[in-house]
Amino acid sequence: MSSALASLLSPRAIAIVGASDSPARIGGRPLRYMLEAGFGGTIYPVNPSRETVQGVKAWPSLAALPEAPDVAILAVPADATEKAVAECAARGVKSAIVFSAGFAEAGDDGAALQNRMTATARAAGLRLLGPNCLGVFNPSQRFYGTFSVVLDNAFIAPGPVGIVSQSGAYGAHVAHLARNRGLGVSQWITTGNECDIDLAEALAHVVEQDDTRVVMAYAEGVRNRDAFIAALERARALGKAIVFMKTGRSAVGAEAAASHTAALAGSDAVFDAVLRQFGVHRARTTAEQIDVAYACASGRYPAGDRIGIFTMSGGFGIQLADDAGEAGLDVAPMPENAQAELKALLPYCSPRNPVDATAQAVTELSILSKSVDSMLRLGGYDLFSIILGTGPATKTFALPLREALAKAMAGHDDVIRAATMSVPREAAEIYEKDGFLVYEDGSALANALGALVRFSRSFERARTGTKPAPGERLALPAGPISERAAKDILRQAGIPFPREILVPPGGDAGKTAAEIGFPVVLKVSSPDIAHKTEVGGVVVGVKDEAEARSAAAAILARCAEKAPGAGIEGILVAPMVKGGVETIVGVVDDPTFGPVVMFGLGGIFVEVLKDVTFRVAPFDAGEARRMIDEIRGRALLDGVRGATPCDVDALADLLSALSRFAATHGDRIESIDLNPVLVLPQGQGIAPLDALIVLKPETSP
Amino acid sequence: MSSALASLLSPRAIAIVGASDSPARIGGRPLRYMLEAGFGGTIYPVNPSRETVQGVKAWPSLAALPEAPDVAILAVPADATEKAVAECAARGVKSAIVFSAGFAEAGDDGAALQNRMTATARAAGLRLLGPNCLGVFNPSQRFYGTFSVVLDNAFIAPGPVGIVSQSGAYGAHVAHLARNRGLGVSQWITTGNECDIDLAEALAHVVEQDDTRVVMAYAEGVRNRDAFIAALERARALGKAIVFMKTGRSAVGAEAAASHTAALAGSDAVFDAVLRQFGVHRARTTAEQIDVAYACASGRYPAGDRIGIFTMSGGFGIQLADDAGEAGLDVAPMPENAQAELKALLPYCSPRNPVDATAQAVTELSILSKSVDSMLRLGGYDLFSIILGTGPATKTFALPLREALAKAMAGHDDVIRAATMSVPREAAEIYEKDGFLVYEDGSALANALGALVRFSRSFERARTGTKPAPGERLALPAGPISERAAKDILRQAGIPFPREILVPPGGDAGKTAAEIGFPVVLKVSSPDIAHKTEVGGVVVGVKDEAEARSAAAAILARCAEKAPGAGIEGILVAPMVKGGVETIVGVVDDPTFGPVVMFGLGGIFVEVLKDVTFRVAPFDAGEARRMIDEIRGRALLDGVRGATPCDVDALADLLSALSRFAATHGDRIESIDLNPVLVLPQGQGIAPLDALIVLKPETSP
Repeated sequence: MSSALASLLSPRAIAIVGASDSPARIGGRPLRYMLEAGFGGTIYPVNPSRETVQGVKAWPSLAALPEAPDVAILAVPADATEKAVAECAARGVKSAIVFSAGFAEAGDDGAALQNRMTATARAAGLRLLGPNCLGVFNPSQRFYGTFSVVLDNAFIAPGPVGIVSQSGAYGAHVAHLARNRGLGVSQWITTGNECDIDLAEALAHVVEQDDTRVVMAYAEGVRNRDAFIAALERARALGKAIVFMKTGRSAVGAEAAASHTAALAGSDAVFDAVLRQFGVHRARTTAEQIDVAYACASGRYPAGDRIGIFTMSGGFGIQLADDAGEAGLDVAPMPENAQAELKALLPYCSPRNPVDATAQAVTELSILSKSVDSMLRLGGYDLFSIILGTGPATKTFALPLREALAKAMAGHDDVIRAATMSVPREAAEIYEKDGFLVYEDGSALANALGALVRFSRSFERARTGTKPAPGERLALPAGPISERAAKDILRQAGIPFPREILVPPGGDAGKTAAEIGFPVVLKVSSPDIAHKTEVGGVVVGVKDEAEARSAAAAILARCAEKAPGAGIEGILVAPMVKGGVETIVGVVDDPTFGPVVMFGLGGIFVEVLKDVTFRVAPFDAGEARRMIDEIRGRALLDGVRGATPCDVDALADLLSALSRFAATHGDRIESIDLNPVLVLPQGQGIAPLDALIVLKPETSP
Repeated sequence: MSSALASLLSPRAIAIVGASDSPARIGGRPLRYMLEAGFGGTIYPVNPSRETVQGVKAWPSLAALPEAPDVAILAVPADATEKAVAECAARGVKSAIVFSAGFAEAGDDGAALQNRMTATARAAGLRLLGPNCLGVFNPSQRFYGTFSVVLDNAFIAPGPVGIVSQSGAYGAHVAHLARNRGLGVSQWITTGNECDIDLAEALAHVVEQDDTRVVMAYAEGVRNRDAFIAALERARALGKAIVFMKTGRSAVGAEAAASHTAALAGSDAVFDAVLRQFGVHRARTTAEQIDVAYACASGRYPAGDRIGIFTMSGGFGIQLADDAGEAGLDVAPMPENAQAELKALLPYCSPRNPVDATAQAVTELSILSKSVDSMLRLGGYDLFSIILGTGPATKTFALPLREALAKAMAGHDDVIRAATMSVPREAAEIYEKDGFLVYEDGSALANALGALVRFSRSFERARTGTKPAPGERLALPAGPISERAAKDILRQAGIPFPREILVPPGGDAGKTAAEIGFPVVLKVSSPDIAHKTEVGGVVVGVKDEAEARSAAAAILARCAEKAPGAGIEGILVAPMVKGGVETIVGVVDDPTFGPVVMFGLGGIFVEVLKDVTFRVAPFDAGEARRMIDEIRGRALLDGVRGATPCDVDALADLLSALSRFAATHGDRIESIDLNPVLVLPQGQGIAPLDALIVLKPETSP
């Protein structure tokens, strides 16, 4: 535990400023929780008006303490917090937890107060959590630096689930749900207004803990892109799953988020893509978040995606097969010999997969044993799920059923096993002890198993993949960039463009066109004309020398008229590229994630269907392929109406090269548009027909 | 209760054939359940080898009974069932429930057995439920004609939820979930192999019951299209919601369904569209099915879609706003005056919507009362949801919270009220008594409230709408239909086509083309050539008389060569229609639902994105508009890149007219293709450019 947050989560000595004798008050709860739980370190209640607080010797001030505490819990109102932070700084406290609201989220005065307090802390090397947060807890240390009522009725056991949340209430809620699901918590951190410690730092810390196997995270936005991505990459490298709830995906939700915290909203679509890129599961609902985290809590992941489904009721089998397919699992049929073995055992069964052993397997449990064994022995499945309904809670049936299953499963520990059942928690726990992931709802089970497969693949990529090398730093001009210059820059970055020749003003466009080969396209080249067609700066389908000469003259005349001040480099002559599928590639500067590469199919796909996808730069060609695979119109690149499949490899190379360029020059790039990029038939590469680079206004060095 | 199933669900006298003294056996359970529950009618256990069964006088045979029972429960193996059915028929039993499996689902021998048994019953007017089913129950009559173990630990109370299911296990499972949710059941019918009584008849019966407010249904496919649709229409007319689980939506699921029952699978996409068309909610998961049914169980529906969200924690408010938006609810902002009122009350609150009263409203419950009252009084909301977390289960807080809320809600009974809370069932029930719909998960709540809005609109349409009149019966030829003939037929059905003139062989295509006006398109007209372009039978963009003459000659020459036997009516000359958006309209003969109209955008939208939608014929223009609104590329018809919006009204009229034609001629129509149909700018109508009608082989009358 080398992280800066180690002492915040595992302190030896704690001060509680504003400690209350009332165990129900905000200043009383942390003390009460730690006394009840038996915290092993020293607690210093700070309260100048009392001798003792909840039976513990009280101290008049932080200055009066016999030692500098690792953590000070500040349970005082906003207007008393600034002074308390200053006293923490003076006393050499390592970290302070600020509970109170009334800071940046409450308007300009609150923001000013928050800034002053943060500056004081930073100057003294004091770390701050909050303000407007519910604090932290660490069950294995019996340390409860929180006033959350979630601990009112029962503590939360130590366990494999790390929880980091910008919202205290949300963090408390998922801790509660984890407890209901029999899951313990490794560490719990709520970050509130994040004046200092933010979600990324908390995430990085929790991920490193040995007892953390999976992290449930909640955010409305993130502040520190690099730290956030580093934490996601580290989790992936460690093979630890992150299950994320990101809110603000709707317009009204984003508006509410903006008014709720100071976090930059950024684009939800980009955030979504970043989570996919780094192998994070984004949950759509809280129920899904806990369902997926539960599946990851064992830290076991399947080797592949083949699932065998065993049912004693046809309807449930069909339903689970539907759900498994939708979750990306392969409901692969049993091999012929295995089907024959099952048919011999059970003439009326469906032996394919789902295997429906009918109610007869309930009547004769030896049949259940034998047929499950057949499935596991011969099916080659990575995952196995059985549908049990209320059976495990039926008095006479529960024990024999468990024994029959245990017998069948023996020796197949490599297969991830799961079961649906609708039973009280105690009955489910018995199966969990036998290694089953237990769900009430089959759809939730299938969805969680699908997530396990994706995590498994993502961890494998992290093990085997290499980080893309950053692109070489190129000299970018200070001012606007012409199409020709943009292409020259991007060619250096490894992006291929069709051959083009610049005919300077006064040159012979006809001769050059003949050299290129007809038909050609003529385009004005000017750093000052970003949208060439709007000034009549493009003529396509030019068929001979004479037409080329007159078209060039006409272009220059129109530009002189419509863009009189523009510097004209000349006329670009390029071949007319035919065929291929039109796509759009671009780079945008996301307020949260910086340079982000965008990809979509051209025309109506982007305009009508908004069928685009993103990746934060840089990324390799493998990631680019996954990016390409995400668009709904993907099949178009495989060739439709008998067309040849497109050169997707070349497209992936382009996206990766562009991402490396964008990452290296993120400080200068406002946006890049390659529109259209024709993806030609396999083996013929790609043809980006246009290039536009828009630079950020240069800041003085 | 005039339905044929009335005596099956509410019998006076019951025989149990194969009645067992063991209360755990299949033949023992129904008797045990009815004895324990106190069934009010007469029970005749039939068992020739015993004097009494479970303490009830036993009878040696059905023939020996003193009266003809309304219902006979046949708890005997498959091979004894045929005889038992014959005895039921002889004794004048009204309905028999056949539990045993081993019939049509088990292969050819089983199917033959099922057919013989069904014929015997039908001849005697005996109704059969099953075989391979779990029977029925009717809690208000304490009648339990089932051996389902779901009743083992507790009975299910009478209540508003009707359950009809092809799968016995699934039906039992949702009954169990309903009970866990505090919901009673009106009637419960499982139909199994459906040799006689099918899902449609069961649905129609359950919907008519006064105590049924909502129906949960499960099917893998339906057998009787007309009865099924009639039941859906009747439910809608009665304002009763149907929440449907249809399995077999994936390929592997559909395959499993086909091997599971004899039900025709049909197309899942068509089934899905039919459910939407008749206002049924199709649940994606069982959890969703119970969540939506729970919301409908009160029988109350919102007047509109505006939802007010009240939270004391920002994060949850954002999340619920996201979910509500996705569920189709309008998270409309509070009016300015209401926002001002809230700000005056609570300076730090977010007053827009979600209203975030912050934790201060927890500390001072009068603030909660006042601000909720402001929302309801001034917000104009149809639905209201509050986020309560674990509050309602906190000892000191629960009662004051409830009182504060009750005070705020008084006088606002017209608003559908809902709450999320994570509490034990008893605590939730208190809020249910206060009229709240209570959910643990906010996403589930939002989804269910969205369903309430859609049900409300659907019921309103049923009240105000008119059924489309069937199309007039037209004379269809016996053999193949040429393009020209197809268009003539469809013109009579009210579908407009661009003006076209047929030039008979030997006629002057040039002169006719000049009459139409250039440019024109020339097409061969032949009943024997369905795919004209494949034989070179189409020439487009013909610019003058000479070109028209030579094109006509070329077409005839090519057809003579490539389709030598084809009867040639001549050459169709039509104007080249420009502009508009290309769409595809068609009719398919679905194996389950018969004539179904298909609509999609042309080209890659259909080919790559499979972006098509369906409606069962006939339907009116309003339904056609909803159909059009369902496609993902819908925005294309609104005009993109500055284009004029398309004439969607004309398109809707075409779809409706085609549906009326298809419904009337469903016995003859195999398929119809109108491809492409150009949808022209608003006010300019539509232009179907081609028409192909394929007839079914005529059956002898």
